[in-house]
Amino acid sequence: MASSETATPAKGLWAPALTALDEDLAPDPGRTVAHVRRLLDEGCHGVALFGTTGEATSFSVDERKAVLEAALEAGVPAGRLMVGTGCCALTDSLELTRHAAGLGCKRVLMLPPFYYKGVSDEGLHAAYAEVIERTGDEALEVVLYHFPRLSAVPITHGLVESLLTAYPGTIAGIKDSSGDPEGCAHFIARFPDLGIFPGTEAIMLDMLEKGAAGCISASANVNAPAIRRVWDAWQAGREDRESLQDEITATRLVLQANPMIPTLKQILAHRLGDSAWLRLRPPLTTLAGAQAAQLETELARLGFGLAAA
Amino acid sequence: MASSETATPAKGLWAPALTALDEDLAPDPGRTVAHVRRLLDEGCHGVALFGTTGEATSFSVDERKAVLEAALEAGVPAGRLMVGTGCCALTDSLELTRHAAGLGCKRVLMLPPFYYKGVSDEGLHAAYAEVIERTGDEALEVVLYHFPRLSAVPITHGLVESLLTAYPGTIAGIKDSSGDPEGCAHFIARFPDLGIFPGTEAIMLDMLEKGAAGCISASANVNAPAIRRVWDAWQAGREDRESLQDEITATRLVLQANPMIPTLKQILAHRLGDSAWLRLRPPLTTLAGAQAAQLETELARLGFGLAAA
Repeated sequence: MASSETATPAKGLWAPALTALDEDLAPDPGRTVAHVRRLLDEGCHGVALFGTTGEATSFSVDERKAVLEAALEAGVPAGRLMVGTGCCALTDSLELTRHAAGLGCKRVLMLPPFYYKGVSDEGLHAAYAEVIERTGDEALEVVLYHFPRLSAVPITHGLVESLLTAYPGTIAGIKDSSGDPEGCAHFIARFPDLGIFPGTEAIMLDMLEKGAAGCISASANVNAPAIRRVWDAWQAGREDRESLQDEITATRLVLQANPMIPTLKQILAHRLGDSAWLRLRPPLTTLAGAQAAQLETELARLGFGLAAA
Repeated sequence: MASSETATPAKGLWAPALTALDEDLAPDPGRTVAHVRRLLDEGCHGVALFGTTGEATSFSVDERKAVLEAALEAGVPAGRLMVGTGCCALTDSLELTRHAAGLGCKRVLMLPPFYYKGVSDEGLHAAYAEVIERTGDEALEVVLYHFPRLSAVPITHGLVESLLTAYPGTIAGIKDSSGDPEGCAHFIARFPDLGIFPGTEAIMLDMLEKGAAGCISASANVNAPAIRRVWDAWQAGREDRESLQDEITATRLVLQANPMIPTLKQILAHRLGDSAWLRLRPPLTTLAGAQAAQLETELARLGFGLAAA
């Protein structure tokens, strides 16, 4: 088991890792952990385990805990992980948060409870507050997960404000998966001390220049080196950062033209020559043959590497 | 433990029971089961445990199992229960369905997995199919739960059709919480062999006359006797069924003018003189004092019983 380590504020490129499945559609810790290590080797500063791309909500608490334990046992440093722990049930969110923090993973990515819609900021504040207080770990760093298209429960400025006031040392950032550059810029301007992460690299450079902490993007599962080059060019103030950004934006547009998670699994299966990566847990489904063929044609046109490494 | 009993097709008035909470915001089996028994005594033909009104998705699998076990231990007949078992995670839905069926509760109410939006009917079919096949209980009766405003994952005619074709003996009905009388009438017309239950008694008589099996309504938590009278008048072909329907519709309109679940808990707490019933698990919150006062004024104007029984 990896030893506990003090979390450093998350920065840079983070990949929300895909979760591999076995024949019973249960998480396959071996393939998943190998993928996590590959992502770190490819230049990701860190990996978010069990975000939307990792089909988090499609797995039970026990299934999610087992994959995290396998990652740590395989030597993945706790400080390079961000663990998705936000569920509909307070008790599930609490169990996952306590489990991660107890294993030294102090940085968690928390969806709000997302079944009830139109709930008040007061109610969402209480949901986060109960998890933070019951976990009772001073080192905990919560990244709030704003994904209005899927959760349909937005993280408002008012909610961030009230949580920051109550838990200034704990609320660490926002993953903004709205895809909306204006909204992301507003988060950055309003909360300069938080780490703001857009959920798509298509706006990464723009947002970095406005003060974002980095990017947590699904595409990093298949395109990490190229996205990392944009980060490095920006860090170094190099002029090619714009043209490098244009390249990753072009790739992103092809990726997101189809359902994102099946698309990424399709590419990974192809590249690794491992059809196990095609599996998705229902309600997600693999790309139809024609979709997959068209995807590969379009990626090939961009010179995107589909061959085995 | 209640013995297993053959489920009979659900019909009539079903109450989706509120869940009482203890001081830690955990389900309080004692108060909850007493409420279930009261609902049956008040004329409900059955009780749905852990629907939306019961804050189902806000509790862990273990919390939900414990309440069902307590109800059966207290002598609530398994055949008068419909157990909510649909979760985002296939493994959670499966565990709850197996648990209920194993205890003799063959009738389950299943939300589709509701985190991912815009998923295909093929994916939703697979989600239901995996639960049905892995449960492997010939006596299982699945009521599909259509609640587009909250789940944001609608149950389409195409999905019902494909599930009925694959599992004709298992797909038993649809709870239609859309509130849309036209959509409900379409379900009834298209699937005459299924038990269709509108989720609001405001359209109960209309839908019964079109062929609905009954009604599963949150309001039954506080107004079961009056709703049952409409059922009885309709069954007997009595002329007062329209005026009785008008009365329960008027009450419903007042109830649903505020957030429904806090409103119902407010009324129950008042009526029972038991403030424990005011508790809700975040993200839901109790009514503000002014809201509660206005609600009581409006109900009193209707002659609605708020006094302790």
